[in-house]
Amino acid sequence: MNDFYYPRTRSGKSAILPSVPWHYSGELITLEYRTDVDAVAALLPADVELADEDPGAVAAIWADWQSCSTDFNEIMDPVRCQYKEMFIVIRCKYQDKHYSRCAFIWVDKDFAMLRGQHQGYPKKLGSIHQSRPVNLGKAGPRLEPGGKFGCTLAAYDRRLAEARFTITGSAARPGFVNALPMLHHRWYPAIETNGTDSLEEVVTMSGYDGQMGRCYQGEFELSLFDSPVEELTSIAPRELIAGYWHEVAVSWKQGTTLARRTLEAL
Amino acid sequence: MNDFYYPRTRSGKSAILPSVPWHYSGELITLEYRTDVDAVAALLPADVELADEDPGAVAAIWADWQSCSTDFNEIMDPVRCQYKEMFIVIRCKYQDKHYSRCAFIWVDKDFAMLRGQHQGYPKKLGSIHQSRPVNLGKAGPRLEPGGKFGCTLAAYDRRLAEARFTITGSAARPGFVNALPMLHHRWYPAIETNGTDSLEEVVTMSGYDGQMGRCYQGEFELSLFDSPVEELTSIAPRELIAGYWHEVAVSWKQGTTLARRTLEAL
Amino acid sequence: MNDFYYPRTRSGKSAILPSVPWHYSGELITLEYRTDVDAVAALLPADVELADEDPGAVAAIWADWQSCSTDFNEIMDPVRCQYKEMFIVIRCKYQDKHYSRCAFIWVDKDFAMLRGQHQGYPKKLGSIHQSRPVNLGKAGPRLEPGGKFGCTLAAYDRRLAEARFTITGSAARPGFVNALPMLHHRWYPAIETNGTDSLEEVVTMSGYDGQMGRCYQGEFELSLFDSPVEELTSIAPRELIAGYWHEVAVSWKQGTTLARRTLEAL
Amino acid sequence: MNDFYYPRTRSGKSAILPSVPWHYSGELITLEYRTDVDAVAALLPADVELADEDPGAVAAIWADWQSCSTDFNEIMDPVRCQYKEMFIVIRCKYQDKHYSRCAFIWVDKDFAMLRGQHQGYPKKLGSIHQSRPVNLGKAGPRLEPGGKFGCTLAAYDRRLAEARFTITGSAARPGFVNALPMLHHRWYPAIETNGTDSLEEVVTMSGYDGQMGRCYQGEFELSLFDSPVEELTSIAPRELIAGYWHEVAVSWKQGTTLARRTLEAL
Repeated sequence: MNDFYYPRTRSGKSAILPSVPWHYSGELITLEYRTDVDAVAALLPADVELADEDPGAVAAIWADWQSCSTDFNEIMDPVRCQYKEMFIVIRCKYQDKHYSRCAFIWVDKDFAMLRGQHQGYPKKLGSIHQSRPVNLGKAGPRLEPGGKFGCTLAAYDRRLAEARFTITGSAARPGFVNALPMLHHRWYPAIETNGTDSLEEVVTMSGYDGQMGRCYQGEFELSLFDSPVEELTSIAPRELIAGYWHEVAVSWKQGTTLARRTLEAL
Repeated sequence: MNDFYYPRTRSGKSAILPSVPWHYSGELITLEYRTDVDAVAALLPADVELADEDPGAVAAIWADWQSCSTDFNEIMDPVRCQYKEMFIVIRCKYQDKHYSRCAFIWVDKDFAMLRGQHQGYPKKLGSIHQSRPVNLGKAGPRLEPGGKFGCTLAAYDRRLAEARFTITGSAARPGFVNALPMLHHRWYPAIETNGTDSLEEVVTMSGYDGQMGRCYQGEFELSLFDSPVEELTSIAPRELIAGYWHEVAVSWKQGTTLARRTLEAL
Repeated sequence: MNDFYYPRTRSGKSAILPSVPWHYSGELITLEYRTDVDAVAALLPADVELADEDPGAVAAIWADWQSCSTDFNEIMDPVRCQYKEMFIVIRCKYQDKHYSRCAFIWVDKDFAMLRGQHQGYPKKLGSIHQSRPVNLGKAGPRLEPGGKFGCTLAAYDRRLAEARFTITGSAARPGFVNALPMLHHRWYPAIETNGTDSLEEVVTMSGYDGQMGRCYQGEFELSLFDSPVEELTSIAPRELIAGYWHEVAVSWKQGTTLARRTLEAL
Repeated sequence: MNDFYYPRTRSGKSAILPSVPWHYSGELITLEYRTDVDAVAALLPADVELADEDPGAVAAIWADWQSCSTDFNEIMDPVRCQYKEMFIVIRCKYQDKHYSRCAFIWVDKDFAMLRGQHQGYPKKLGSIHQSRPVNLGKAGPRLEPGGKFGCTLAAYDRRLAEARFTITGSAARPGFVNALPMLHHRWYPAIETNGTDSLEEVVTMSGYDGQMGRCYQGEFELSLFDSPVEELTSIAPRELIAGYWHEVAVSWKQGTTLARRTLEAL
């Protein structure tokens, strides 16, 4: 019986997630801004505190990924390796250490969504788009000052976010909000569905073999829209910091459990 | 802080799953057949046995659902209440009781997929279609003997299953394979991703206020196709039993944990 | 060589549209209201006049269809027979006769979209949803007074229209705006793309073997939203008339050309 | 009244196609092979002949495009500029000149599909994927010898084509099959749907300001699969020629009508 993700069968052939490690290569647009500090606090569980410095800082990130397992079979069947992602990252403090933390996230493939369940990312499905840079012709921005990119997010047939980013120059690093190890909670509510969790874990994770490629900074505008089933407008920008277009590669195989509470064994 | 599903925020507005109870109304096509008993055994975890009687019986079920929470807001925004589902049900024995058990399942909305994570259904995304009966005109089958229905399932751009069902008469009940309480395992692999589970639960669940509406039986053909990431062909039909078109309504609020193993609290 | 729709091959097997006749069975929600008469006039070509009576009347129609050709093969492969549609119908006068006319229309399948090109419907792709009535359970409205339905339309990740409809009683017919033969223009701009049309036709069409099934009337609300590439808000409701839920079946095989202008033969 | 594409309104805001010129930037994988010459002949209308040389040559092309109009608004709303395309190109002779000709084509956006109706491409909707090259990390091929790419096409939930391409070196040009001006037929069947066309045109077209960027050649495998509504298997490879990964930019504003037959004006 394979010992990883659903469905668990003897062969493991149909598991929605392959065995680790997982490899990622992508192009990201990271837009950093400050929002109301109380709105960030409202997104943190009771055991997590605001970051000491710049606690209202937020990163809104669009990503166009390819990911694969170690035999690279997904690259040859690209509908199973390509996905897009938009996520909101804040920072926080837990037991005196600072972390990055994903508050909201949307992807457009099921394997990416369930990978989030494993890693503690609160993933939903969405429709995510970002302009791609081009090397020739007029139908896209160039990776150079003046290059203009558009980004959008929608879910359940409502547009949730729009951004415009213009490169002003090169950058050494793509901001600071998503730069720390992640701190996530992994909750599994009991099937009794009575407000208790069978499992509550606090975990931290980072990738390995991370590489940073081309990196540009620039100016941006960001608009967040309301929906009956979203709360992005609670963290609307109050002050823009900076935006970045950057290439990323990273691999992932494991995180570390910092705390675990469980219901009693039966 | 809302105490249920991701993301957990103070308002709970953006949670992918609303609070229970959940209400369902749907039209199902259930196709029962026998497969290789060893293939069914291969789908069971070590603590679960084959059913005593007719252990190779399988139900392949297509469902066209609407579901909602108790304030019915989803009905007014139907992109959030309608979904389609195809699932494979087998039966099994656990601690001397018999249960139904979902072996494979595909849905076409994220809320349905994560609801599966809560209930122990190993849900993936797919493209699911079934003919709808019509009351007038030529573009659909009638709910009467001779009415012919088509069903299809695809995932990752490959067709995985096709069926044809023809009504031969009315029926008292839609078969026996999916008629027992469900027995599911809820596994949450540790973030250390080392082959251990932080949580392993065996749960059982049934709906309440179940209603059966119109129910017809008939003849069918079922074809299952291969994919690099599926194993449906392992449970191909060896002997057909019977097919059913039936209306179902049910509500759900909770299950019962039968066994729980956890890693040590940290 | 098949003599109908793209691609034209000897076998015709891959043609996006099968040979006529085409059969349709569907459930529709028709919402009739009055808008600014000048806004209706602005949607008419120069050779078409406003209707003599009630020229500002508009029908916003959501439809959940199955359609098929005469060998019914699409019913057995339902991904090829099911589609959803939202369309805006106005009325007009052409050469002293009154007609219905489709001003805007969205569908969710390619065969439906190209069928529109043939018939003169200006079809685009959209995401269209309407609540389905249910016979049992809580997850849907009943077809009886008090039954409440929601309807939505989106395109390019923006919500374009939302409606709520509540049944108040039965009805003899589903309104008057979409009740006349259609008058459409079929334009094929010259490949020189210089503002001239190779072909301009004025055509009229009706179905045959039309049947009306259950029909209910009621109250509604309708909201239309803006987009950079739509102009629905130009025909926003000023006065509501009535709404209807109704079953329809119809077949189609041909229309009649009323006028034709062409560029010179080469 | 705007004088171009559906729907025609006074403002033209909602037209599915913007005014020309249109600009394109894309990455293509072109796989050239020879098939049965009779199968190519079977795809040609009566007024078109096989090419004099290498008449069985075919190009199967996957393309990942961005396209926009001259104000570039689509780049800032990328869901309206990005689309994918798979198409089959053959060559032919018409009135003693040789041309390239699109036999089959699938895209994944409505604007691209209707642009095809204007240009004579027989476009349908499909699900199209090709591996993207990456500059860093493991989740994608590098643009260098040994870089391996996968390509897939599906429509109506059936996989229609799969290819694997491996770079062996750089190339001066991406083959010869799609290198000539296009020769397309633009047919508009009469609304009487009686086997006659209101308009039949033979047109030719090329882009302008074409640019070729990086270009690599290599080895490939290509598999074509059957469907009830496709005929790709009729042109299965008999002998592989060569494959190419290449960057393209081009603009388009017009074609030229070579022949036009129309029904009589009314």
